Amino acid sequence: MDLTELVEQLPDGSVLTDPDLTASYRQDWARDPDAGSPLAVVRATSTEHVQTVMRWATAHHVPVVPRGAGSGLSGGATAVDGGIVLTTERMRDITIDPVTRTAVVQPGLLNAEVKRAVAEHDLWYPPDPSSFEICSIGGNTATNAGGLCCVKYGVTTDYVLGMQVVLADGTAVRLGGPRLKDVAGLSLTKLFVGSEGTLGIITEITLRLIPAQPKQATVVATFSTMEDATGAILDITRSLRPSMLEFMDKVAINAVEDAMNMGLDRTAEALLIARSDSPGAFAASEAATMEAACSAHNAAEVFSTEDAEEGEAFCAARRFAIPAVERKGSLLLEDVGVPLPQLPDLVNGIAAIAAERDVMVSVIAHAGDGNTHPLIVYNADDAAMTERAHLAFGEIMDLAIALGGTITGEHGVGRLKKAWLPDYLGEDVMELTRRIKHALDPDGILNPGAIL
Amino acid sequence: MDLTELVEQLPDGSVLTDPDLTASYRQDWARDPDAGSPLAVVRATSTEHVQTVMRWATAHHVPVVPRGAGSGLSGGATAVDGGIVLTTERMRDITIDPVTRTAVVQPGLLNAEVKRAVAEHDLWYPPDPSSFEICSIGGNTATNAGGLCCVKYGVTTDYVLGMQVVLADGTAVRLGGPRLKDVAGLSLTKLFVGSEGTLGIITEITLRLIPAQPKQATVVATFSTMEDATGAILDITRSLRPSMLEFMDKVAINAVEDAMNMGLDRTAEALLIARSDSPGAFAASEAATMEAACSAHNAAEVFSTEDAEEGEAFCAARRFAIPAVERKGSLLLEDVGVPLPQLPDLVNGIAAIAAERDVMVSVIAHAGDGNTHPLIVYNADDAAMTERAHLAFGEIMDLAIALGGTITGEHGVGRLKKAWLPDYLGEDVMELTRRIKHALDPDGILNPGAIL
Ligand SMILES: Cc1cc2nc3c(=O)[nH]c(=O)nc-3n(C[C@H](O)[C@H](O)[C@H](O)COP(=O)(O)OP(=O)(O)OC[C@H]3O[C@@H](n4cnc5c(N)ncnc54)[C@H](O)[C@@H]3O)c2cc1C
Ligand SMILES: Cc1cc2nc3c(=O)[nH]c(=O)nc-3n(C[C@H](O)[C@H](O)[C@H](O)COP(=O)(O)OP(=O)(O)OC[C@H]3O[C@@H](n4cnc5c(N)ncnc54)[C@H](O)[C@@H]3O)c2cc1C
Repeated sequence: MDLTELVEQLPDGSVLTDPDLTASYRQDWARDPDAGSPLAVVRATSTEHVQTVMRWATAHHVPVVPRGAGSGLSGGATAVDGGIVLTTERMRDITIDPVTRTAVVQPGLLNAEVKRAVAEHDLWYPPDPSSFEICSIGGNTATNAGGLCCVKYGVTTDYVLGMQVVLADGTAVRLGGPRLKDVAGLSLTKLFVGSEGTLGIITEITLRLIPAQPKQATVVATFSTMEDATGAILDITRSLRPSMLEFMDKVAINAVEDAMNMGLDRTAEALLIARSDSPGAFAASEAATMEAACSAHNAAEVFSTEDAEEGEAFCAARRFAIPAVERKGSLLLEDVGVPLPQLPDLVNGIAAIAAERDVMVSVIAHAGDGNTHPLIVYNADDAAMTERAHLAFGEIMDLAIALGGTITGEHGVGRLKKAWLPDYLGEDVMELTRRIKHALDPDGILNPGAIL
Repeated sequence: MDLTELVEQLPDGSVLTDPDLTASYRQDWARDPDAGSPLAVVRATSTEHVQTVMRWATAHHVPVVPRGAGSGLSGGATAVDGGIVLTTERMRDITIDPVTRTAVVQPGLLNAEVKRAVAEHDLWYPPDPSSFEICSIGGNTATNAGGLCCVKYGVTTDYVLGMQVVLADGTAVRLGGPRLKDVAGLSLTKLFVGSEGTLGIITEITLRLIPAQPKQATVVATFSTMEDATGAILDITRSLRPSMLEFMDKVAINAVEDAMNMGLDRTAEALLIARSDSPGAFAASEAATMEAACSAHNAAEVFSTEDAEEGEAFCAARRFAIPAVERKGSLLLEDVGVPLPQLPDLVNGIAAIAAERDVMVSVIAHAGDGNTHPLIVYNADDAAMTERAHLAFGEIMDLAIALGGTITGEHGVGRLKKAWLPDYLGEDVMELTRRIKHALDPDGILNPGAIL
């Protein structure tokens, strides 16, 4: 495919074709071994460039895979053979309006950079995926990312007021904007949030901000059985709204301890980290309620602190759990979620699958919303084990569906969970999905193979 | 059109054709004089009945207008000639799960009934349109209704986790469900919220609930200029998150006072009602901050109370403002919203339009989100005045667009604001909207004439 026409329409250095340079854009964090080899990587710097790419791609029927920071865990940004990878890494502007409490950001800015920029105005952008230092706000929007504080503060879609998006044919449209309430026309902004690059390329996002989060109190508890830990989770969420409620199992505790040396109890089967950000003395009183719930469920140790740094250290440990477990071997990353009462059944069922398939599965979770990340650890050089790991991967999703849960709570379907989507949604909803995809991207050039 | 086949497939008494009986289903609260005469009104009691109606309607190319409680203010539920009005008034079940804090409701239940049912479990469904005693939860979902507490707690879409919806061809699909986080597939639930009956008929809704609201402190302040009142609004929203921040102008104050005799100051140009529901002593301390902001902006009177009943009386007064002003004449109801800093320009611009067109315009507002309801009062027997009122109606929307605002913050486009939608969205977004409408309702039988 001749790229001259495209290269000429874009600033120098926008188009990479050298395989040494494009190699690092082939995979996202899921490291799909079947990733394709892209024709080119385009580093866009403006909406107009994205339009140029899409017009060219439409004219030549070339697939385009949008890419943020490549931290995705479902293969949503995996390159396809002969396609363009369009990265937003150079689109990094932000404008903050403290009066309307909104920010207009380009998609390539990292989540952490958004948080830091708005914090200078005493404002807060809540959604906080564990990957916040390495994921883009555009990727967050395209996946409707969740995170740790979402149990109280909601997910990305709750903070996206509007966006600019480039459609398959290169048309750029503005949806929503800096208005807190707006029902004029269909809820198109919301449709594009979570569309994983299959409906359009998001080139600007208008975010709702809220006042800075109050000081948090942190509770850490360890348990010698999973049942006790899940019992405590249910009790806590029945009585109050924690600003964080996270879970790690023994494998994760040990992996984190290996890497960070924090003095975590290596013998514990489960660890909970819970926080309250209620104002003033209420944070401590909610922390006491949460401590009591943990004690009532036989916590081996339970500990609480109002010290911000100490609390943050435990959160950092939880956030580091995926990379820490990853040091044990190759990972297949699950993201299954169930209604909270089904959490014990899910955790037990996963243990049974791990035993049956003879693979290690570590479970970490945004426990307060029932969203778990079973991490299947395997040795990629061992073909039989790799096959067993993949069997377990599917069986865990089947289990979640059987328990009334979802196959993905926040990471997205991408390419890796696509085979399970019809089972989860049913044929009628798949057909509805295809109709919308076809209406917006009739030639199927936007992120083909993702979701559908 | 022969209805025998349809009548035979539905329970006795489902289909009304007697014009005396169908007359009350021709209009919603906007009382569009151009409302059509429906072929029949169908009172469905189950999803299956709705499917029956849609299959029949598709086979015979008969338009169907979904209707909840008919409290809509944009003509969204206005009957069309020769069409079916499908009312959900008999679909009134609710099942509450206090552990997962969710409720599964049929669409015909009134918002107030949902609130009362969940309150029995110490739970809270926040969205509270002023019409909460007379609007259905299905209508709320279809319009993405807002209300008084939305300034802190968000709008309907923030509480809809899933739904069952019957598509134009009669297929019933389940979208989302009782999972707090779920990103499997496109955000279809969110697309149907606010679709005003143009994409499908919502037959069941899964709602997210939160713990009961803490006790509120209430601040009431009067001002002798609009500028002062809007200054206080900006100061309050800059410093904290009120659980309510409402505005009434002099006309509304007097109309409410005529009807309710509460002792409101009839000479005031503006009245603010603000509340805080921060826990414990924080409510009173936030109330004090809001009082101070009002005083700093020359409030004539400012008064605060922690008494729930007294506070509720002021909220009831604000909620009664539309019906109270309606006693002064026929109404054209606006719903324009602007970013908060533009609020003074909007209010002043509306006064100028009212003067120019020689009609009375009373402004009430969900001030904290910049969402205003200018109420144009006119004498429907006076043709010249009616025409001037309609001119003012359009000019106010033009003004909102010019100020970076929306033509509708919560009531929806329906039929009455449709002519302004292309100006607001632009041709490309209209085209995107048409593509989605066409993909889901290719024959255009679902609520034709609404939005598009
Ligand atoms: C250690 C670790 C921890 C994580 N923890 C969490 C967590 O707590 N919660 C969570 O939700 N996720 C988590 N993730 C997953 C990941 O970080 C999120 O999915 C994130 O939103 C992806 O952002 P990205 O910029 O890296 O997107 P990418 O990986 O580049 O892309 C993700 C998807 O979005 C699409 N996309 C990206 N940018 C755009 C755009 N501008 N327009 C249209 N489509 C676009 C891509 O095509 C792809 O489908 C974690 C990942 C890691 C590695
Ligand atoms: C005095 C007064 C005060 C009000 N205050 C507010 C307020 O504060 N905030 C606010 O948002 N609104 C307010 N409204 C407007 C109105 O109450 C809301 O729009 C409400 O959501 C409409 O609900 P309904 O059941 O009456 O719907 P209807 O009027 O019957 O219908 C509204 C729209 O929804 C569609 N629809 C209804 N049910 C379904 C269904 N099951 N499936 C698909 N489509 C459906 C209809 O076709 C129509 O387009 C007020 C109205 C009045 C009269």
